Parts: sequence; structure tokens; C-alpha cells
Amino acid sequence: MSQLETYITQNEERFLEDLKGWLRIPSISTLPEHAKDVQRAAEYAAEQLKQGDLENVEVIKTQGHPLVYGEWLKAADKPTILCYGHYDVQPVDPVDLWQSPPFEPTVRAGNIHCRGACDDKGQTMMIFKALEALMKTQGELPVNIKVLIEGEEEAGGASIEHYVKTYPERLRCDAILICDTHMPSSEIPALVIGMRGMVYTEVEVIGAKGDLHSGTYGGVAPNPLHALAIIISKLKDEDGHIHVPGLYDKMRQPTETEQKFWQQDPLHLNEAFKQEMGVSQLSGEPEYPPLQRATARPTLEVHGIVGGFVAEGAKTVIPARAKAKISLRLPPELKASEVYPLFEQAVKQVAPKDVKVSVTQLHSGDGLLVSTEAPVIQAAIEALQQSYGRKPVFVRGGGSIPIASLFDQILQAPLVFMGFGLPDDNLHAPNEKYSLAQFYKGIRTIAEFLQRVH
Amino acid sequence: MSQLETYITQNEERFLEDLKGWLRIPSISTLPEHAKDVQRAAEYAAEQLKQGDLENVEVIKTQGHPLVYGEWLKAADKPTILCYGHYDVQPVDPVDLWQSPPFEPTVRAGNIHCRGACDDKGQTMMIFKALEALMKTQGELPVNIKVLIEGEEEAGGASIEHYVKTYPERLRCDAILICDTHMPSSEIPALVIGMRGMVYTEVEVIGAKGDLHSGTYGGVAPNPLHALAIIISKLKDEDGHIHVPGLYDKMRQPTETEQKFWQQDPLHLNEAFKQEMGVSQLSGEPEYPPLQRATARPTLEVHGIVGGFVAEGAKTVIPARAKAKISLRLPPELKASEVYPLFEQAVKQVAPKDVKVSVTQLHSGDGLLVSTEAPVIQAAIEALQQSYGRKPVFVRGGGSIPIASLFDQILQAPLVFMGFGLPDDNLHAPNEKYSLAQFYKGIRTIAEFLQRVH
Repeated sequence: MSQLETYITQNEERFLEDLKGWLRIPSISTLPEHAKDVQRAAEYAAEQLKQGDLENVEVIKTQGHPLVYGEWLKAADKPTILCYGHYDVQPVDPVDLWQSPPFEPTVRAGNIHCRGACDDKGQTMMIFKALEALMKTQGELPVNIKVLIEGEEEAGGASIEHYVKTYPERLRCDAILICDTHMPSSEIPALVIGMRGMVYTEVEVIGAKGDLHSGTYGGVAPNPLHALAIIISKLKDEDGHIHVPGLYDKMRQPTETEQKFWQQDPLHLNEAFKQEMGVSQLSGEPEYPPLQRATARPTLEVHGIVGGFVAEGAKTVIPARAKAKISLRLPPELKASEVYPLFEQAVKQVAPKDVKVSVTQLHSGDGLLVSTEAPVIQAAIEALQQSYGRKPVFVRGGGSIPIASLFDQILQAPLVFMGFGLPDDNLHAPNEKYSLAQFYKGIRTIAEFLQRVH
Repeated sequence: MSQLETYITQNEERFLEDLKGWLRIPSISTLPEHAKDVQRAAEYAAEQLKQGDLENVEVIKTQGHPLVYGEWLKAADKPTILCYGHYDVQPVDPVDLWQSPPFEPTVRAGNIHCRGACDDKGQTMMIFKALEALMKTQGELPVNIKVLIEGEEEAGGASIEHYVKTYPERLRCDAILICDTHMPSSEIPALVIGMRGMVYTEVEVIGAKGDLHSGTYGGVAPNPLHALAIIISKLKDEDGHIHVPGLYDKMRQPTETEQKFWQQDPLHLNEAFKQEMGVSQLSGEPEYPPLQRATARPTLEVHGIVGGFVAEGAKTVIPARAKAKISLRLPPELKASEVYPLFEQAVKQVAPKDVKVSVTQLHSGDGLLVSTEAPVIQAAIEALQQSYGRKPVFVRGGGSIPIASLFDQILQAPLVFMGFGLPDDNLHAPNEKYSLAQFYKGIRTIAEFLQRVH
């Protein structure tokens, strides 16, 4: 048994105790009354970094909750890895659905139950302990390390965004390790290699100059809600095809590996997934596998329609104006800046002629796709294969991880999303838990990964 | 000059003072803090009826605001006319847009400005004064009269509905005079001879069992808002045609007179009307004249869409359910009870297959059409012709007047909608006014009408 393995084995119990201590701090970033707890959780993280002999450990003040930084940069000629995690957690409501108190870590059936157990104190602690184990057994780290932990991941992440944009030099690195994602099951390791971008818009339709009564004007007045219905129904059909001319032109032909993966779909797009959603059939483009639809195809969704009368009961208003919130999710090869004008044009083309229509972009961001050929991804593959006895699957996320887009854009280093959460970890819900087996395996895998990066 | 004409001429000033006294009482029926004012306005009306020597004058207590009743039933072998009006008024917000205080009657340029000046104290006062003038000059009335005035017309009218349904015998009559409508201009008298009925529904669409995040589920989840857009766009096309199979089957062929009237359109469906609405073109079925579309064709309107995210900003929710408030206006020959099942069926037929859809009827009512051949209508035509030097136009209302449907259904007597409001009277808006010329002419016309009824 290697020294490293011996160290980890001998210290498992203490690692868990260190995690428990962190979990007991109710660091809910969105509730002002927990601001001091958030601060305490940051200091706790700094202590952990010091315990692993990292240097220049600092609790960095921000406009919001602090960042925690630590580094070890003495591995000459070796790559530098930036490790990211977050120490803030979601609120715990509804409290009465928790089987044990939300901030009292409780082990049941091989899982530790607590808010933050997985997301993301549990996964972040694995980084701390992998670094500690390497340092304590080898007296040094196999690579240069920068650790940056935030306390606003559940609250918009403004402070880390500001920091990354202000000090890109300080964070310069060759790769970024993010431990905040999931595996499809405890047997199937995964690497997230891509996520979609998005364009979020508001489509506003104006009819008459004021609200009208349908008794007097019904039959001669434009109805912006009806116009929106026509626009929306023409933008996307019942089969999920988006009718925005030019949208699909730049779609990349998927690789054979991707196609095979989507078709085999070892993940959650099966009967259990339908049950979880509460539907008898999945929606969307029938000619593509569900996994491809959910992660690699563009989507168009209406999120809300503003205007008219929406209280209880009946009112016969024809509203003067109405607005739809519509977003498109975009695979990485479709750029938000190119898609938005196409969308705007399509809306104007399909709008009924008796109304005025305008489109506003609320925000946008590009997707990203990590090359599986990158050496750092190869190192992650090997580390996961060693821990789990099989190669990881490559997963694309259907949504976006804002911090990943930010890192991608500012630091321009390959991202390694190596996460150990499981689908039933109840993130953001009562009874959040984390598998102890995953926790210990994760520590070993991260240490292995860092040794294999070159 | 007839005694009647002399009496009216000599008393015009007092009639106006009597109206002013009533107008000064802020009888806003929807604001609880004005309950006592509403009561005072009822008592004022009762005093007016007594001043006209009506008998059995009574302020009738109800669950809400009082009704005012008076009668004179000594015209043996003559028909009985029920006269209706209301003494409650709309709120006055925004107050700062009023040029004179909303409850201080102020005469400017031949108009009296005050909340309720036209709607409906001014028009109701004309009935009181016509009766008074007849009684004072002839010692009797030419017909039997029952007057029923309500104080909840702007607040749902529950009390009069209850009263009419409970005491139909007490209100039995041969015709009903309603003074609460408008003329197209001060030169063109009008009789409202019909109004549309309506079916008001909610269409609910259910997708997944809970709200979903479009990042994770976009591409495979049903979107109830999108489904509603498809349903709505299929129920009515851009040209205003309603695609509810069977809906148009029972449409009556319009008479030649009606068609000619709609085509000539002496009313407000012209350039000024478009300006009033603030549109460059009218919407709806291009093959029918606007006036026919607004009053005699069925319409389908969406009034609001409930569900999803409608606050400021962006949220990427795919809502589990969404609801549209949709109403149909129906010409009198289409019965609500027949149309609703057709609508429900149409909704279910066009709904996308990946969602569950249900339809609820919130309320409904049939339209009505008064025969222009009825003797009472002939009397009204003659009276208006005498006052205005030309025959009235027959107008259909696009909306419904609930009290009219109620009278029609329970009392089953022909309705005479003889109103003297003008299009610029600013009902329900700041600076409501009533033309003094119309007020005095109205008194004479109503007196003339009552003398011609036989």
C-alpha cells in the first residue's frame, strides 16, 4: 500500500469529522441573518487549507461574502491547477421534511445527511483532503495549486465574477478543476465536457394605445396576447422544431462516439426519468435521442407571459400590450451573438400585421465544449478509471454553470468537471446527503488526478 | 306650447339643481368607506320619486346597497313600464386629471362635469323629471309605471339580481325602459336593440408534475405555456376566424337593413375610431364590416395567461401548469350552453399530445335581440324622431348589460334601451360630463315616449 493510500485510510474518520464541523455552520448565502455563519464557514475553509500546508491562505473580503484563497506554487516546470468549490449552501425550507436537523450532520446507511453535505462542502472538502494527503506524505504537491472557494454560488456569484475579472493574472493556470457535478450512478464515473449557452429575451407586443373592453372592441381590436400565441406557436412547433431561419445552419455534426452515447443513454433518460418528471412521454424532437435533446440541441422555451388579467375570476380586458419571456439554449457551436439577431428577425417575420412587436435581450452567454483530447482530461479519465474500474462517460450539461463560462472566457484554460455527487443526493431539497463511499473515493481520485497531470 | 312643454321649460333650472344635489353625493359603490354616501344617494332618489308623486316609494334594504322603488299603477287598461337606472358611480382615480373636483358639479361649455353626470345619475334623473312633468301637468301618468333603481351597477349588481329573481311578480310589466346607453352623436338618436352573450372560460394545461429548470429539462419537458400558445393560435387565426367546429353553424343570416347599416356605418368605426384606439388598422375578419364584427359576429379573446415567471428579469422555469382566460362573445342566436361544449371539444382536439388540458366555464350568458316591430320600440322610434328630427339608428352592443339579460330572462318583456349619452362623456374616466342639451332633450323624449306607448 502506498504511503498516500495509508495516510488516507488512517485519516478517513478525521476527514469526516472535519467535514462535519464545516457542515454544522449554516452558511446560507441568500439569507442576511446568516451572514456571520457564512463568514465563519469561510474561515473554516481557510483553516483547512492551512492544515494542508497551503501558502498565502487568505479570506478575501468582497462586496458580498468572502472568497477563500490558498496556493502552493513550488512545483517548478509543472502545470498549475486552479481548484474551485463553494462553501455557501441553499436554504433548508421546508424544515419539517428533514429526517434529521438540516445542520446536524447525521450518518445513516452510509450517507451523511446535512445541508451542504454534497453541494458543495462535501465535494470541496475532497479537494482539501486530497491536497493534505499529498502534502503530508510527499512533502510537496505534484503540481502547482491555486484554490479559490466562493461563498455566493447559490446567490448569483457576483463577488467571484468581479474578482476573476479584476485579477486574472493572479488566477492564471493551465487547467481548472471544478468539483460540483454528478455521476449517473455510483458505478459510472463521469466527466462533464460541455454545457449549453443561452439567449434570454423578452418579446413585447403592442396593440391599441390602452386596455380595451372586449364587449366594445372584441372583433376589431388587436389582441397582443393572441398575437404572442401566434408568434410563439410559429417559433416552435409541437415536435420541438425551432423555426428561426438560419438557427440550425452552424450545428456541428456530432461524433460517432457522441451519437452512440446518446443512443445508449446510460443516464437518467428512461422510465424512471419520466416518472420523476411526472409525464407519460417525453417532449421534443422525436428524431433525436432524449439525451441529445436535453444537452446538445438548441431549445426554445417560454417562461412566462406578462399582460392582461391574471387574478382569480373573469375580466374581459383586451390588454394594450403583452410580453413573453423566451429563452433559447444553445449548443457551444451556436454563438449567442449570432443567434439573437436571427431570433429577432424571426419574431418580426411571424408577428401578425396588426400589432407592433419588439425584442429585447436580457442576457446571454455562450456554451462550452472541452476537448476530450486535452492532456488534463486524459489525466482525469485515467484517475477515474483507476478508482471505478471503468472509463468515465462524457456528459454534457443542458444548462450553464456561470462560473465555468467565466473561467473559460477569462482564464482560457481547459475545465475539468470531475464531480462525485449521485442523482439522489437531494441538492437544494430536504434531506440532502452525500455518500461516504463517494467522499472517500473522491479524495483518492482527486489525488490520483493531480499526480497524473503533466 | 303644451302644458307639458311649458312646465319642462320653466323648470329646467330646478331640474339641473336637483341633479347637482344628487351628483354631490360621492356614491362610489365599490369603496366601503362610501357606504353611507351610497345610502344617502338612495334616499335622495326616493325623495325625487316622491316629488313626482309616485306611490309606495321605498328604499329597499338588501345584502349590499339599497334598491329604490316607486310606482304609479292607476292607468287602467294601459301597459306597465318598468324604468331602470342606477345611482352608484365609479371611483374617481386618478383625481389629479380632473379639471374640477369630481364631486362638485361644474358647468362648462354646455356640459355638466361630475362623476355620475351621465352614468347614470344624469340619465336616471331624466326619468324622474319626465314622470314629474307628466304628473304635475296632467294629474296622472299615461301608463302604469314601476321604477327600480339600483346602487350596485358598478359593483356586480348582486342585490338587484337577487331581488328580480325573488319578486318577479312585483316587477311584472309590459316593457322595460333602460336609460344607460349612448347615441353615436348629438344628431343621431339610437336605440340599442341587441347585445352579445358570452362564455368565459379558463383553459388549464398541465405538463410535468412540478416546475422544471430549462437547463436540465429543456428539449424533453412539456411546456404548458407553449402548449397554450399552440391551442390559442389554432382556436383563432390571424384574420379573426374562430376555429371551433360547429360554432358558425347556427348563425342567422343578417337582414338587408342590418347589412346596409353595417356597411354604411354611421357610427364610430372610422378614422377617428382608429385614432381613439391608437391603431393604424382594425383587426378581425376582413370580409365583414367592422361594426358587424364588433357587435354581431362571435369573437374569441384571450384576457390573460397565468403561469411561469412574470416578474422583472430572467428565470428559466418551465412551469408545471399554465392557464389561459379565454372568452367568446356570442350573437343572440348562438346560445352559451350550446357553444361551450363545442369550445371545450375544440380545445381538446388542438391541444398538443404531451400535455393534459382541461376547460372550466367561469360564467356565461346569452345575448338578446329586440324585435324592432314591437309596439314599444315603435313608440320609442316616434319619440326620438320627434326630438331629433330623424329616425333613430338601431345599434347592437358588442358586450352584455347583465341587468338586461336578467330582465329579459325573468320578466320576459321587451327592452327599450333609450340612452342619451354621447361618445365623449368620459364614463369611468376623469372629467365625466353630460350634455345639458341632451339632459333636457332626454326628459322631453322620455315623456313623449311614455305618452306614445299603448
